[in-house]
Amino acid sequence: MTRPVTLFTGQWADLPLETLAEKAGEWGFDGLELACWGDHFDVEAALQDDGYAEGRRELLDRHGLRCWTIGNHLVGQAVCDPIDGRHKNTLPPRVWGDGDPEGVRRRAAEEMKNTARAAARLGVDTVSGFTGSSVWHLLYSFPPNDFREIEKGYEDFAERWNPIIDVFDEVGVRFALEVHPTEIAYDYVTTRKAFDAIGNREGFGINFDPSHFAHQFLNSPEFIEEFAERIYHFHVKDSKKRLNGRRSILGSHLDFGGPERGWDFVSPGHGDVDLEGCVRALNRIGYTGPLSIEWEDSGVDREWGAQDALAYVRRTDFEPSTHAFDAAFAREE
Amino acid sequence: MTRPVTLFTGQWADLPLETLAEKAGEWGFDGLELACWGDHFDVEAALQDDGYAEGRRELLDRHGLRCWTIGNHLVGQAVCDPIDGRHKNTLPPRVWGDGDPEGVRRRAAEEMKNTARAAARLGVDTVSGFTGSSVWHLLYSFPPNDFREIEKGYEDFAERWNPIIDVFDEVGVRFALEVHPTEIAYDYVTTRKAFDAIGNREGFGINFDPSHFAHQFLNSPEFIEEFAERIYHFHVKDSKKRLNGRRSILGSHLDFGGPERGWDFVSPGHGDVDLEGCVRALNRIGYTGPLSIEWEDSGVDREWGAQDALAYVRRTDFEPSTHAFDAAFAREE
Amino acid sequence: MTRPVTLFTGQWADLPLETLAEKAGEWGFDGLELACWGDHFDVEAALQDDGYAEGRRELLDRHGLRCWTIGNHLVGQAVCDPIDGRHKNTLPPRVWGDGDPEGVRRRAAEEMKNTARAAARLGVDTVSGFTGSSVWHLLYSFPPNDFREIEKGYEDFAERWNPIIDVFDEVGVRFALEVHPTEIAYDYVTTRKAFDAIGNREGFGINFDPSHFAHQFLNSPEFIEEFAERIYHFHVKDSKKRLNGRRSILGSHLDFGGPERGWDFVSPGHGDVDLEGCVRALNRIGYTGPLSIEWEDSGVDREWGAQDALAYVRRTDFEPSTHAFDAAFAREE
Amino acid sequence: MTRPVTLFTGQWADLPLETLAEKAGEWGFDGLELACWGDHFDVEAALQDDGYAEGRRELLDRHGLRCWTIGNHLVGQAVCDPIDGRHKNTLPPRVWGDGDPEGVRRRAAEEMKNTARAAARLGVDTVSGFTGSSVWHLLYSFPPNDFREIEKGYEDFAERWNPIIDVFDEVGVRFALEVHPTEIAYDYVTTRKAFDAIGNREGFGINFDPSHFAHQFLNSPEFIEEFAERIYHFHVKDSKKRLNGRRSILGSHLDFGGPERGWDFVSPGHGDVDLEGCVRALNRIGYTGPLSIEWEDSGVDREWGAQDALAYVRRTDFEPSTHAFDAAFAREE
Amino acid sequence: MTRPVTLFTGQWADLPLETLAEKAGEWGFDGLELACWGDHFDVEAALQDDGYAEGRRELLDRHGLRCWTIGNHLVGQAVCDPIDGRHKNTLPPRVWGDGDPEGVRRRAAEEMKNTARAAARLGVDTVSGFTGSSVWHLLYSFPPNDFREIEKGYEDFAERWNPIIDVFDEVGVRFALEVHPTEIAYDYVTTRKAFDAIGNREGFGINFDPSHFAHQFLNSPEFIEEFAERIYHFHVKDSKKRLNGRRSILGSHLDFGGPERGWDFVSPGHGDVDLEGCVRALNRIGYTGPLSIEWEDSGVDREWGAQDALAYVRRTDFEPSTHAFDAAFAREE
Amino acid sequence: MTRPVTLFTGQWADLPLETLAEKAGEWGFDGLELACWGDHFDVEAALQDDGYAEGRRELLDRHGLRCWTIGNHLVGQAVCDPIDGRHKNTLPPRVWGDGDPEGVRRRAAEEMKNTARAAARLGVDTVSGFTGSSVWHLLYSFPPNDFREIEKGYEDFAERWNPIIDVFDEVGVRFALEVHPTEIAYDYVTTRKAFDAIGNREGFGINFDPSHFAHQFLNSPEFIEEFAERIYHFHVKDSKKRLNGRRSILGSHLDFGGPERGWDFVSPGHGDVDLEGCVRALNRIGYTGPLSIEWEDSGVDREWGAQDALAYVRRTDFEPSTHAFDAAFAREE
Repeated sequence: MTRPVTLFTGQWADLPLETLAEKAGEWGFDGLELACWGDHFDVEAALQDDGYAEGRRELLDRHGLRCWTIGNHLVGQAVCDPIDGRHKNTLPPRVWGDGDPEGVRRRAAEEMKNTARAAARLGVDTVSGFTGSSVWHLLYSFPPNDFREIEKGYEDFAERWNPIIDVFDEVGVRFALEVHPTEIAYDYVTTRKAFDAIGNREGFGINFDPSHFAHQFLNSPEFIEEFAERIYHFHVKDSKKRLNGRRSILGSHLDFGGPERGWDFVSPGHGDVDLEGCVRALNRIGYTGPLSIEWEDSGVDREWGAQDALAYVRRTDFEPSTHAFDAAFAREE
Repeated sequence: MTRPVTLFTGQWADLPLETLAEKAGEWGFDGLELACWGDHFDVEAALQDDGYAEGRRELLDRHGLRCWTIGNHLVGQAVCDPIDGRHKNTLPPRVWGDGDPEGVRRRAAEEMKNTARAAARLGVDTVSGFTGSSVWHLLYSFPPNDFREIEKGYEDFAERWNPIIDVFDEVGVRFALEVHPTEIAYDYVTTRKAFDAIGNREGFGINFDPSHFAHQFLNSPEFIEEFAERIYHFHVKDSKKRLNGRRSILGSHLDFGGPERGWDFVSPGHGDVDLEGCVRALNRIGYTGPLSIEWEDSGVDREWGAQDALAYVRRTDFEPSTHAFDAAFAREE
Repeated sequence: MTRPVTLFTGQWADLPLETLAEKAGEWGFDGLELACWGDHFDVEAALQDDGYAEGRRELLDRHGLRCWTIGNHLVGQAVCDPIDGRHKNTLPPRVWGDGDPEGVRRRAAEEMKNTARAAARLGVDTVSGFTGSSVWHLLYSFPPNDFREIEKGYEDFAERWNPIIDVFDEVGVRFALEVHPTEIAYDYVTTRKAFDAIGNREGFGINFDPSHFAHQFLNSPEFIEEFAERIYHFHVKDSKKRLNGRRSILGSHLDFGGPERGWDFVSPGHGDVDLEGCVRALNRIGYTGPLSIEWEDSGVDREWGAQDALAYVRRTDFEPSTHAFDAAFAREE
Repeated sequence: MTRPVTLFTGQWADLPLETLAEKAGEWGFDGLELACWGDHFDVEAALQDDGYAEGRRELLDRHGLRCWTIGNHLVGQAVCDPIDGRHKNTLPPRVWGDGDPEGVRRRAAEEMKNTARAAARLGVDTVSGFTGSSVWHLLYSFPPNDFREIEKGYEDFAERWNPIIDVFDEVGVRFALEVHPTEIAYDYVTTRKAFDAIGNREGFGINFDPSHFAHQFLNSPEFIEEFAERIYHFHVKDSKKRLNGRRSILGSHLDFGGPERGWDFVSPGHGDVDLEGCVRALNRIGYTGPLSIEWEDSGVDREWGAQDALAYVRRTDFEPSTHAFDAAFAREE
Repeated sequence: MTRPVTLFTGQWADLPLETLAEKAGEWGFDGLELACWGDHFDVEAALQDDGYAEGRRELLDRHGLRCWTIGNHLVGQAVCDPIDGRHKNTLPPRVWGDGDPEGVRRRAAEEMKNTARAAARLGVDTVSGFTGSSVWHLLYSFPPNDFREIEKGYEDFAERWNPIIDVFDEVGVRFALEVHPTEIAYDYVTTRKAFDAIGNREGFGINFDPSHFAHQFLNSPEFIEEFAERIYHFHVKDSKKRLNGRRSILGSHLDFGGPERGWDFVSPGHGDVDLEGCVRALNRIGYTGPLSIEWEDSGVDREWGAQDALAYVRRTDFEPSTHAFDAAFAREE
Repeated sequence: MTRPVTLFTGQWADLPLETLAEKAGEWGFDGLELACWGDHFDVEAALQDDGYAEGRRELLDRHGLRCWTIGNHLVGQAVCDPIDGRHKNTLPPRVWGDGDPEGVRRRAAEEMKNTARAAARLGVDTVSGFTGSSVWHLLYSFPPNDFREIEKGYEDFAERWNPIIDVFDEVGVRFALEVHPTEIAYDYVTTRKAFDAIGNREGFGINFDPSHFAHQFLNSPEFIEEFAERIYHFHVKDSKKRLNGRRSILGSHLDFGGPERGWDFVSPGHGDVDLEGCVRALNRIGYTGPLSIEWEDSGVDREWGAQDALAYVRRTDFEPSTHAFDAAFAREE
């Protein structure tokens, strides 16, 4: 076991951090990737209250846990998205405000800058999250897209995120986009386009989560190698295709967990993700950051799932070899 | 060859109907499925000009062609859709008007009623087309959908289309939705939901096009058998998955024909569609309507494609057997 | 681990129950599914000897074991079957009698009624078993079947089993047919036909064993969902296809374990059965009964196999989730 | 095209031979494989009426057709089978007689001897057909088989067929068993056992029909090479697996053509059979006999099917190469 | 049909060119790719005899044939290879000389320069051929390779071929290496290395033959797109994997055509090559040169094969589309 | 766990045996398969120094280890190979001598005889190793092979190894060739040829390592059954195909561990090898020798790998069953 294994707290935000940290410590996690919602990590408090970040660290310490990364997916999502009621449900009131779309986007952008500053105060160098996208909804080109509109979506992304990343750079923190459908980058092609749009700047990298690639039929280990320099964080999650000729790979507008969906998220090791292949690729590119487990399996009790996933990651995350296996065949001269 | 083979004219609307009919007649088609755009079939003219429909029929007759169906996909799409610039490009100015979304949707609904009336004047009993959808853009549930919103999308569909289908019923014409991503129904689950929403009324059926199912990993022949009573029209088109671990099944926001797409439309017989399986299913359900070829292959010259497709359909569309193959084993007594 | 894990004793009937119970208790099983052969559970004794059932329960208690189900496959098989020497080898002499086929079938039917009564005495509410079939041998229709004969097979089944199930109903016990080739129901189609034949009465349900589905290329989790209301018991067993172009899926009239067979039974987790998929389906339908391990692997020592299977089931049988994984993304208001 | 292409007449026995021969001649067949039922070829008449065989040949000649083989599947089936009503429906009354099983089997055996004699009179050297089997119904070993019984089935076959083949030898005709489920040989294992049982005598060979192998997941070209010396005749027929997780490979006791079957017979070239692979294997073993098309497709009109199959065979049956492709790279010295 | 279809004459060198040209003309080929062996095209004669090249062209003209390319695989092979008896069999005596390896390699290099000059005289701009390789035999690294030796193999290639390509450049002809096992480039990796070694100079490109990629499990259309600028010629040939668990993909040191080989060359359209995919890729990169059919199928008569291949290429080589299929959906404004 | 599990020491020859034995003992291995290089087992010392073999055994004893087999792959390789610099790197100087190829081969042959004698002294009855091959480099037949040369390669093998095996026979030790590309036998075909060449003598058998079969697409369990009488030793190693359309199955002349290779060796249980299938086959043939783990995974730390492999083998190596699972269904009479 070469890398710390953490638990992403986003799906546990109904529990106070104290409760969750106690559980995670007992289960044997090395740390938590704190979500910026629930009471887990409050960006505003971190900036306004000098002792807040220190307090969070002490809380974690008490349970033998560390923090390498915080995640602010929900606010990041609102930076580029067309805004609707779904965002109202997931944004802090101070970001939602009056709900005027452009206002929401601008406040979300400011909040992401503050997230960078808060991360710096907490002493972590990576923020994971989403970007949103002004063009995601044009996915299937009908009525036929004017593809210049798609290009404008990438320009819009760059215009909105460049100033955010400027702040990240200032405070020495990196943003790690979780490449994911609904985001500006969700596969090889769009990741390349997003990086090109933002000038391949170092402050903007990837939180790679292979569960979003399996149902797209994408190869995760190769992605890690292709974008080796921008893999800043890694999510351990899984998904499983359940195709039988009657279930669409597109999901049928059904909620996760529905028996008629063509694919679903499942606990790590229970789906199509080649985690060992990812570990080998991470070894090759020299990634030494956390493997952060994200529980998303509508069919499995989450506490059972967290422990099952931890055991799975521990036995799969092996150290690379330090020499060629046929080296010992040669005589030493 | 048991069924008439027609050519859908929608992708040839840059050509005058006279030109296209001459070609199609020479190539050996039995008829045309006239698109309600270009100069092929003008709904307004058909209603206002007593001789228009008759004139279209005569034009077809001159080239040995018949018409069983007209298609008005572009206007139908606007009935339920959120409206944007893409609709402006594809709607007649009289429907687009000032572009106010609700106004566009209402005028599109009226135009669909008129399309039914125009079809009746032309003497055809089926209109193929699209419905649009107010919820398609919520396909991937992030930010998490409130799934009551999805249900409302089906209610909205029923409210807008029930009055349209009333007119179809009055004039003795059926509407055949092309089950298709971006529409209210695009797979098994959503087709069932759409039919339930609209009360399974007879006036609303399916134009089945298997090319939209192949890339969703859906079984087309089984769909034909499951919805046997509502298969009102059949499109012969094909699509091909091009997955290699680096191309997403979601299409990467790339235009059709791009080499990095994970799937693409191709000429009939050049892709993943099991046309023979569809023919066997159509035989079992007793479908005797046209097989309408729709050319959509960015890599193939359309004139070559139309003729290649016609030959392919002719050799694939066989008659069913009239008795069991082992019947002759028994002695007659 | 949410459900009791039991061991079906049928393949251990060469051992006295006392011996087997001691082993099973030590291995950590929760209980036994007692076979009505060997000395494990004697239907006649249970009815004639007031203390017999109580004695069996005490024996199990001593080893920390319970009993939820008894299995009487061998006698049930004779109820509908054409009778031959194979039945003589597997029936109690009192059922075989003089071996006259119809007499055997009738005595077998009486014995199944008694099995229900004996189960009630033992305090279990489920009897697993077989039905036999008068038409199984007509599987491949050559010489061509008169398919009315097949229908008569289902009628024969209903006539013979309805009176048996009447007794089951009277004593508050359910019969759970192990859906299985050689039985009246062995797949989706025949299960539907059998249920229809017997009026879908509640007393007649399914002991589902996915090992019989894998070599038929049938989906087990979907079967569980389709027949959710009739899944009364679950057998954990596995089978593996060994096709190489020279071995027939039909088994070549070879004994199990032969290297030239196209498929074979194997220890749970060593074959093609998707047990996790079954567990998810069982969770969805709310099945809370036992998971009963049936050892049938000609290549594995049965004691090793029983323990290996128990460990496998324990780590695969997880509890379902109690809430959606994205519930915590929403602000509480 | 190197080999004659014939049509097996068994499925056309409702038509007088005159009618069928006229059609087959017009379609371009080289000959007919005459079935010994309907009015196509009457074994009794051929033996009793000196001009009968000559008359059949003249009839064929008139339509430009020849005959290399006659088929007597229905009578051969009764030689080893347990006899039931299905045989009554398919046997000539003189063979069925009073229906006493052993009597039927003996009369069937005599009829097969006469078939050899009649074939000799007609001037053909091969009779295709079935053997029946006394053990086919024990296919799935439950109740568990006493496998000595299976061995006895092969002995019974040898005892009944050796005297028949003696007559074949006397008159210089070979019997070609169609390897087929329900027969004594239906795959690699059972073909080997059957040949061993009958002493690998030359008079008893194979009519190979790959459609019976595809649904058993067996490799047909390798079979041809393994049993090269006993391939006496070849049937061109096809079958197609239709598995979707809900349809059993065992056929569900459904009639051919039913939409819920897991596999079905289909017209040549429309299924899973690798005919080109068979042709290459036939070339390698030097088979120069007919390719005999057997129409069995419940979904295709038989006249369309016969012509479609003929065209398919003509374009697939190519001549082997006479020298290595890289021979011309070497200098001649 | 957009491109000329030619026949590569290398496998027909036992026939005088006159004979072959007559056949090819009758079969409908557009031209021949002349092999520099047999009497097809004699490099020495072309340089020494002023009328030779003219005479060859006239011979072709008489049969309606043209020549775009000549192939000198056998001599090219000797440029880098370790030399053994196999080369003696395939080289002209003037190149073999005394058989001293380095002398053979040097004479072969001179002959390739002369081949360029002879091509220029014949008026063709492309020579297809092989390079040989000094390191091919180190394919499987055991005893473990010193991988610096592999690098030296590429340097050796560059040293030997750069002077040859200088002559090609001088006379305005391009060399097209057939990427092929046994050559310096046989897959993606080695093609990239070979091009790098030789400085990516324009005079050295590819004769792409997808039959060498199918058995390596390589994607041919993607290769065409990746090396678009260096695709100078295209061979239509096919190969087929015949894996059954007992045949090695490595070929078992068996001659082509042996039934135990794991793969073999087959006539175009009879194997695993995706020719349509190649055609689409060739369309995308704008390749307008010949499609040259190379017959190599040990199981098919070569004259049947040549004609079958020609028909196959004619129906597969379609013209690309000139506009998007959804272009006609937009109103013209 | 029925068989001893050993560690092959060849890849650990950089460590003194004392160090390695201490580790292996602590990890729980049952023994070591000593390599005849490094300081692990010195053939010369064993013959010259009376106490050497005894000393090695004592060293192993101290760590609770035994030795059933010694391996001399590197010297064996030189017996038939064309000799080059790679052999110099891997041979003892006394075998390499002046490097004259034939001299090297002869000294290697003598050393293999001595290896047999040394094995006898150590008290082991099996030597694993390689043979080399004079024809391996002719793998792909271009320039076209004269296949008589291939036959001569097998004759050369027999001539060189027969005298070696004579010594093995004399001292009661068996040679077990590791079937492997680069050796005289590497698949089914070549193993059969090698055995035939050497007269199927008992002294020459197989060290079976399934990792060499997986990338050749060969079935390992069937091989074990086919060559049952000659399976003398078993290596537990694994390999994994990494094909993606851009990586060749041939390895691209890349070193093991390179990300562009089409297959690679991996730690047992991490690849394509069906170890359970092999265990079942070994059970069927009655093999009771060691399962010897060979670590070769360029991506995994070897100490982690050795322990991971040991745990994997322990849980996979089960005992066979001693009776049929349905035996207990029959009444005892």
